[in-house]
Amino acid sequence: MNSIAPLHAPTKIFPVSNGELVVGGIPLKNLVARVGRTPFYVYDRNLVTRRVEELRAALPTRLKLHYAIKANPMPALVAHLASRIDGADVASGGELKVALDAGISPRDISFAGPGKSENELRQAVAAGALIIIESFREIPLLADAAKALELPARVAVRVNPDFELKSAGMKMGGGPKPFGVDVARVPELLRTIGEAKLAFEGFHLFVGSQNLRAGAIAEALRKSYALITELAASAPAPVKIINLGGGFGIPYFPGEQCLDLTPIGTTLTGIVDEAAKTFPQAEIVIELGRYLVGEAGLYVTRIVDRKMSNDELFLVVDGGMHQHLAASGNFGQVLRKNYPVAIGSRMHAIKAEVVTIVGPLCTPLDILAERMVVPRAEPGDLVVIFQSGAYGASASPQAFLGHPPALEVLI
Amino acid sequence: MNSIAPLHAPTKIFPVSNGELVVGGIPLKNLVARVGRTPFYVYDRNLVTRRVEELRAALPTRLKLHYAIKANPMPALVAHLASRIDGADVASGGELKVALDAGISPRDISFAGPGKSENELRQAVAAGALIIIESFREIPLLADAAKALELPARVAVRVNPDFELKSAGMKMGGGPKPFGVDVARVPELLRTIGEAKLAFEGFHLFVGSQNLRAGAIAEALRKSYALITELAASAPAPVKIINLGGGFGIPYFPGEQCLDLTPIGTTLTGIVDEAAKTFPQAEIVIELGRYLVGEAGLYVTRIVDRKMSNDELFLVVDGGMHQHLAASGNFGQVLRKNYPVAIGSRMHAIKAEVVTIVGPLCTPLDILAERMVVPRAEPGDLVVIFQSGAYGASASPQAFLGHPPALEVLI
Repeated sequence: MNSIAPLHAPTKIFPVSNGELVVGGIPLKNLVARVGRTPFYVYDRNLVTRRVEELRAALPTRLKLHYAIKANPMPALVAHLASRIDGADVASGGELKVALDAGISPRDISFAGPGKSENELRQAVAAGALIIIESFREIPLLADAAKALELPARVAVRVNPDFELKSAGMKMGGGPKPFGVDVARVPELLRTIGEAKLAFEGFHLFVGSQNLRAGAIAEALRKSYALITELAASAPAPVKIINLGGGFGIPYFPGEQCLDLTPIGTTLTGIVDEAAKTFPQAEIVIELGRYLVGEAGLYVTRIVDRKMSNDELFLVVDGGMHQHLAASGNFGQVLRKNYPVAIGSRMHAIKAEVVTIVGPLCTPLDILAERMVVPRAEPGDLVVIFQSGAYGASASPQAFLGHPPALEVLI
Repeated sequence: MNSIAPLHAPTKIFPVSNGELVVGGIPLKNLVARVGRTPFYVYDRNLVTRRVEELRAALPTRLKLHYAIKANPMPALVAHLASRIDGADVASGGELKVALDAGISPRDISFAGPGKSENELRQAVAAGALIIIESFREIPLLADAAKALELPARVAVRVNPDFELKSAGMKMGGGPKPFGVDVARVPELLRTIGEAKLAFEGFHLFVGSQNLRAGAIAEALRKSYALITELAASAPAPVKIINLGGGFGIPYFPGEQCLDLTPIGTTLTGIVDEAAKTFPQAEIVIELGRYLVGEAGLYVTRIVDRKMSNDELFLVVDGGMHQHLAASGNFGQVLRKNYPVAIGSRMHAIKAEVVTIVGPLCTPLDILAERMVVPRAEPGDLVVIFQSGAYGASASPQAFLGHPPALEVLI
């Protein structure tokens, strides 16, 4: 127990009552009884709504807010968001179905991805969604689909910019990338789109994700907008949509702090105002996945066993890496760090022991918390992993070792 | 292209005909047509059979060979193995079902895992499988189940040894571990098992997996057997099963070589001979997962796009990390390394270009090969990942981004 070690950002958005975590107004133990079994993911719909409202308050009114479904495709959650956001970004034919099922207008759905299949491109044209072109390859396929279906192929161009998003958790633009088309070739791409008579609508940039430095995000937004302003000179039709991406991070690990929206709001206000003059027909869009839903979700699992091995204390729980790969440290992390974890049934108890929390799998990779300080907990107690609303259930190898999948509830 | 860089071990077990990889006697393109779509996993049943035969030839006749279903639970594959191996190891109620469905006798099924649920313990007693006790907690639960079901609870004890498996890919014994019971407490555990009137049958040790050094495996087998000999003095009944684990590795990465079975065979012959005197009623078992099926499997995916970005060449394929997490480097690896990868439709072509092979997901994690030298390939060509028969489909987040799951075929 190192007293100068960095701490997790506080997870205050879930209240505590009588020492028990309360989720959606329901004490955790009641919630567990209502769900019927552990482990499960729970997403709090009011926290999602509140997050959208906070964003609306901090960002310019005319800015459009899209949800990136890849963060969490649970149908009920997408349906909840459908009436609260201005559109959705999908990354496959499967996600397109989820967006349409949720009642999101195809006009407001954009479909990006570096390896779209011919069938997916056809699906998107048939639905009337906006296809984000990431390669010259897609142009003749879209022209064929448009002709066969007698429908316009609505397209925007994803640009691989000539700069990077500094300090992003994952870099998705700048340098050699499979995403989008290099800046230098965009004029040629725009000409080809015009010749193929696709319905050009605008531009998309997405330079990185999981960034906690507002200054870096604001700078990337400014640079992205400036780049699009240049490239628009070659556009075959007026620009109707400018998707500037997102990359807003949430704090996962000790020492990380919540993102400050203020400088981002200021920057976006400047961009929206300028665009009103330069691109009078254009919507300015940002797309957020993790930032909308990540903090509203918990992963709840029950302690099965408490055992010592060579003076180290292990809590064995009924959930694990098969259901929450990211918390186990096997989803893009180089070095494993602990997510914020609590004993949801003992929130007021003194943090009294150092434990390693492991799942039921027969592999040393199945770790949910390594040498964390928590209150003393017993079999039957509930272990809660915060910041689990995004890239959780759908991003985990749930069939691994033959356990039933985690339930997901929206509350 | 660095000519002194280490190479992948040769993947000669799949023949090549007319420049095309041949799997189960079928040229790859025909196989793809027969499967109906890409991507898919294919497992060659004759290669699995041959691997079992090689093991039988290299290891003592009286040694029992178990299959660890976690490596690949595909029902048809488990059914193929059922008549060729002597038993199976399962890690969940779900895997127990797969083993029973495959016709493996419950007598020869053992169930290990640090967090077995009460229901799983009951299932195992009801089936008549051998339960590998990993904690004191399980004893009263098993006694209750045995009483309620009026059936014996067959048990063995998993020991967390006081030594490690040197140079194992994953260490599963020695030091503080959630697996098994520390050596020092085993006598007390054995006494408790006797008092609870469980049907004690033996011991299990599993110190690590994915080891390519035969000497280290042989040493661990010797030490494991010696430790069990000591502990057996406290056993409440004669020892009928001694499961010494496995840990036999296969070469994945450049510079790795196939395991030499000779020293392991010599060591196991010594153990089996000694056990014939010391434990006349006992079966000596090793359990292997990856080693039985890993090399017999390929992951087959098709090139969708070929694109340059800032002077780097990308091949975008229709499969990716969602279906083959381990090949993307997100399954226990600290630093990503390339699996052996080939252009299955151009096996005789000169290796002419450096490519990065990426999947269709909108994430920079979706890499199947990074800066590898391969023959020039075009969209439509088939990319094959070798060494994919274990910890592939079932160990991957297949729902991530909403693509259909990979097909699996046994040929």
